[in-house]
Amino acid sequence: MMQTFDAIRARRAVRLYQDRPIPQEDLERILEAGRRAPSSVNQQRWDFVVVTGRDRLKQLSRVWRGGRHVAGSAATVALVTPLVDDPDARESIGFDLGQAAMSMMIAAADLGIGSAHSAVRDKDLCRRLLKYPQDRTCDYLIALGYPDDRPIKPLRNHKRRSFDDVVHKGSW
Amino acid sequence: MMQTFDAIRARRAVRLYQDRPIPQEDLERILEAGRRAPSSVNQQRWDFVVVTGRDRLKQLSRVWRGGRHVAGSAATVALVTPLVDDPDARESIGFDLGQAAMSMMIAAADLGIGSAHSAVRDKDLCRRLLKYPQDRTCDYLIALGYPDDRPIKPLRNHKRRSFDDVVHKGSW
Repeated sequence: MMQTFDAIRARRAVRLYQDRPIPQEDLERILEAGRRAPSSVNQQRWDFVVVTGRDRLKQLSRVWRGGRHVAGSAATVALVTPLVDDPDARESIGFDLGQAAMSMMIAAADLGIGSAHSAVRDKDLCRRLLKYPQDRTCDYLIALGYPDDRPIKPLRNHKRRSFDDVVHKGSW
Repeated sequence: MMQTFDAIRARRAVRLYQDRPIPQEDLERILEAGRRAPSSVNQQRWDFVVVTGRDRLKQLSRVWRGGRHVAGSAATVALVTPLVDDPDARESIGFDLGQAAMSMMIAAADLGIGSAHSAVRDKDLCRRLLKYPQDRTCDYLIALGYPDDRPIKPLRNHKRRSFDDVVHKGSW
């Protein structure tokens, strides 16, 4: 396990995984990190559907062409939310969900576990596989697994805009 | 500093702050945690405007009646994003922004610093104060400061839906 800031700097998108399961206790810790995330008026407009098992993961990976890594993951968490039309509500649910996702990914990095998002384009397939009600939707998956390339360690290079470009002191 | 999972469990909404500044190095670490957050196609559709100084914070606290705690914060980070209409893009920006916010709040908790969101209702006032361009908007502030009630420690009770209610194994 790592110091917090090391885990934050170590998190990176990992899409190639070892064929090695995540211990139940560690998977539950990751989910617990998501469950504790803050949300607007503490509404917790989310459910987490955890998929394991190679066949199920392969099926789930077909919800988007950019989600092939889900097939090789040790576990993938589907972020299920209320299906709403109002753009303000959608933005707010998105923000809350991003907080839950980030909490899970940092908790995963702390355990040496990599993570990567996938969008969900084939909503019908996703619903058929995961069996959530008609008044819910799923726009994001978080794939998890031990990296097959290199261990999870704090990154020096991370392809981001420079600090001085992003951060404005006092005003723009 | 804390182990990662302790910082995740210690983060809570803190709205009463000591009148004590955050050292520059620690504030920069919190912003760095946000800068490193992942985003859709690494677009980083965000700028962080950091406000300090009691008078400026008092002015900024007037952007929403639920943002009074900003006035007493040691620093507040305004999350500025492109102003877009498309609901899918708004949800996606919201998700990315939530990831950046969570990363900052966990990094803050690790340093014993509390945090709390505010929405922004008076968009004109926020723009006048922070001087960002017309093609940007700000929907969220993150206030930061040392808690005036009790230290930042892992929480046992956190008013969340139960683990078994939130987490579904395999399918709904």
